[in-house]
Amino acid sequence: MTANATSPTPLTLLGTGAMGSALARAWLAAGHPVTVWNRTATRAQPLLAEGATLAATAAEAVAANQLVVACLLDDASVGDALADADLAGRDLVNLTTGTPGQARDRAAWAQKRGARFLDGGIMATPPMIGQAGVGGYVFYSGSRDLFEEHRDTLAVPTGTTYVGADPGFAALHDVALLSAMSGMFAGISHAFALIRREDIAPKEFAPLLAGWLAAMAPAVHLTAEHLHSGDYTRGVVSNLAMMVAGNTTLLRTAQEQGVSTELLTPYMDLMQRRLAARHSEEDGTGIIDLLLREPGSLR
Amino acid sequence: MTANATSPTPLTLLGTGAMGSALARAWLAAGHPVTVWNRTATRAQPLLAEGATLAATAAEAVAANQLVVACLLDDASVGDALADADLAGRDLVNLTTGTPGQARDRAAWAQKRGARFLDGGIMATPPMIGQAGVGGYVFYSGSRDLFEEHRDTLAVPTGTTYVGADPGFAALHDVALLSAMSGMFAGISHAFALIRREDIAPKEFAPLLAGWLAAMAPAVHLTAEHLHSGDYTRGVVSNLAMMVAGNTTLLRTAQEQGVSTELLTPYMDLMQRRLAARHSEEDGTGIIDLLLREPGSLR
Ligand SMILES: NC(=O)c1ccc[n+]([C@@H]2O[C@H](COP(=O)([O-])OP(=O)(O)OC[C@H]3O[C@@H](n4cnc5c(N)ncnc54)[C@H](OP(=O)(O)O)[C@@H]3O)[C@@H](O)[C@H]2O)c1
Ligand SMILES: NC(=O)c1ccc[n+]([C@@H]2O[C@H](COP(=O)([O-])OP(=O)(O)OC[C@H]3O[C@@H](n4cnc5c(N)ncnc54)[C@H](OP(=O)(O)O)[C@@H]3O)[C@@H](O)[C@H]2O)c1
Repeated sequence: MTANATSPTPLTLLGTGAMGSALARAWLAAGHPVTVWNRTATRAQPLLAEGATLAATAAEAVAANQLVVACLLDDASVGDALADADLAGRDLVNLTTGTPGQARDRAAWAQKRGARFLDGGIMATPPMIGQAGVGGYVFYSGSRDLFEEHRDTLAVPTGTTYVGADPGFAALHDVALLSAMSGMFAGISHAFALIRREDIAPKEFAPLLAGWLAAMAPAVHLTAEHLHSGDYTRGVVSNLAMMVAGNTTLLRTAQEQGVSTELLTPYMDLMQRRLAARHSEEDGTGIIDLLLREPGSLR
Repeated sequence: MTANATSPTPLTLLGTGAMGSALARAWLAAGHPVTVWNRTATRAQPLLAEGATLAATAAEAVAANQLVVACLLDDASVGDALADADLAGRDLVNLTTGTPGQARDRAAWAQKRGARFLDGGIMATPPMIGQAGVGGYVFYSGSRDLFEEHRDTLAVPTGTTYVGADPGFAALHDVALLSAMSGMFAGISHAFALIRREDIAPKEFAPLLAGWLAAMAPAVHLTAEHLHSGDYTRGVVSNLAMMVAGNTTLLRTAQEQGVSTELLTPYMDLMQRRLAARHSEEDGTGIIDLLLREPGSLR
């Protein structure tokens, strides 16, 4: 399979689950020749009608193209799938979700086998893939050369954001954003629980909640300034002493409304600990330091 | 003190702390005659140069104007301050933060003394008061007549959002939004902790984090749909089974990065509990029900 400079780059895709299939469709729609492989071959079948070529084994699929994209369940399945493949001279792009450590180990493993390696963390759901303007993207880290050479191809399914040569950085950014979202969703659950038994329509409450969270998300910029400067008090409007006092109202309201406080208390306990350590003039930035194990190793 | 139909309504403000002073300045700047009272009179002094009139006692301040706004530390301080005041025929607007229960009790207390009552929950910080276009506002609930009659005056310091005749609803909306924000900030703290020891600039990470959270906040609309319909599976893209599997990566990453998982686990434990109760096709909506004490009393 060859391609001249202007025709779309052919590529191999390992894994045609929900996300892999969405990726394959986006590349096929953009005219890229796509060779697919899936452990359960029947699951790749629908893509053949759309122009994909099916490889009988992962090793065959890898042999078909220089650019090889893996989108499998987890890191272990990447090791399983590629156990017998010859990666020499290949460009392996791993879009399988994993930890930074797994990505670093996988990068070393791929390089030892003669491949360039780029890790990716997908910040999108399958329905967002191939849809312009919906705001999804993939964090990439690892080989900058690989990223630059295949940038246009990688940009076909969704946006691309390169975050560094360290192959663990894409996964780290991915997991950090998902972790923050998990906290936001926990807070959202608590908020809905508070109004659940009242005559307040969830659909009228939702836009107020969404608007407020979107308006408050930029608070991260002050946190970043604080971490950058090491001064956690500069520009603080609501300090820790005020926040801790305010927590009383949050906890009492939960009690009045018959709502468990279990999603609120861990963060409040950390505020209290930081305040007790005489940081009343700070905002919440110092809580980040309390989360780091082996305290003192950094600051 | 009198005012014709077109001149700005005179009003009394009880409490000239950080927020009360900001409110007073906004009304003074808009030409409203403002009578102020503060327990510690010296703290009201700067406002006199800007045109405010100082009352010697809270009772005197209340006697001066029909519209009386209280912005004190907490609900108890409102009771303290107004103990000797004659509220008959007054319009009392309470902008003191409290619980829904406190607001309801305070409304009954005020009505028994012959006053109309409106409670408010301020969704803004003092620097935002009197600044157009910064997006702050006050939730109001209680007497709709009072709200409508004084709407223009109340809109001077910041935006107004009336949420119902139940005097507890302003506080409930206020606390619900603050609780959700607390969850978001907990998640943000965890995210920054994950990158803290890496060569990743907080200032480059912050816009990615803010953008992601703002993009994901509208997930509340699907949650509201679910609560409205009672069907928690409709339109679900990432179901509970997938989310619980993904949590493994979040927890492992925290371990790799030396970050405590204490802010993540309570929400994950609830996901796990809901999944174990055979709700794998739902998203996270069912967690709201798990937060309600006395389960079964509602659904
Ligand atoms: N779906 C999303 O919303 C989303 C969003 C962001 C990132 N991601 C990530 O994208 C990746 C794929 O997700 P998905 O939604 O496509 O999942 P999926 O629909 O469950 O597909 C999983 C894929 O992995 C394969 N697989 C599992 N174990 C394997 C093994 N031991 N050896 C070889 N292949 C194996 C499966 O093959 P079989 O068909 O043979 O089982 C299938 O192709 C995951 O890492 C996920 O975290 C997904
Ligand atoms: N600041 C914010 O960012 C913000 C945002 C939203 C809502 N709020 C709410 O606005 C209200 C006022 O906050 P603030 O920031 O102005 O607080 P503050 O600067 O601490 O002022 C507190 C005020 O309450 C008075 N006070 C305290 N205990 C009293 C008592 N027992 N009797 C009479 N007066 C008493 C104080 O009088 P002294 O001067 O004599 O102590 C002072 O006027 C609070 O309910 C707060 O939750 C504040």
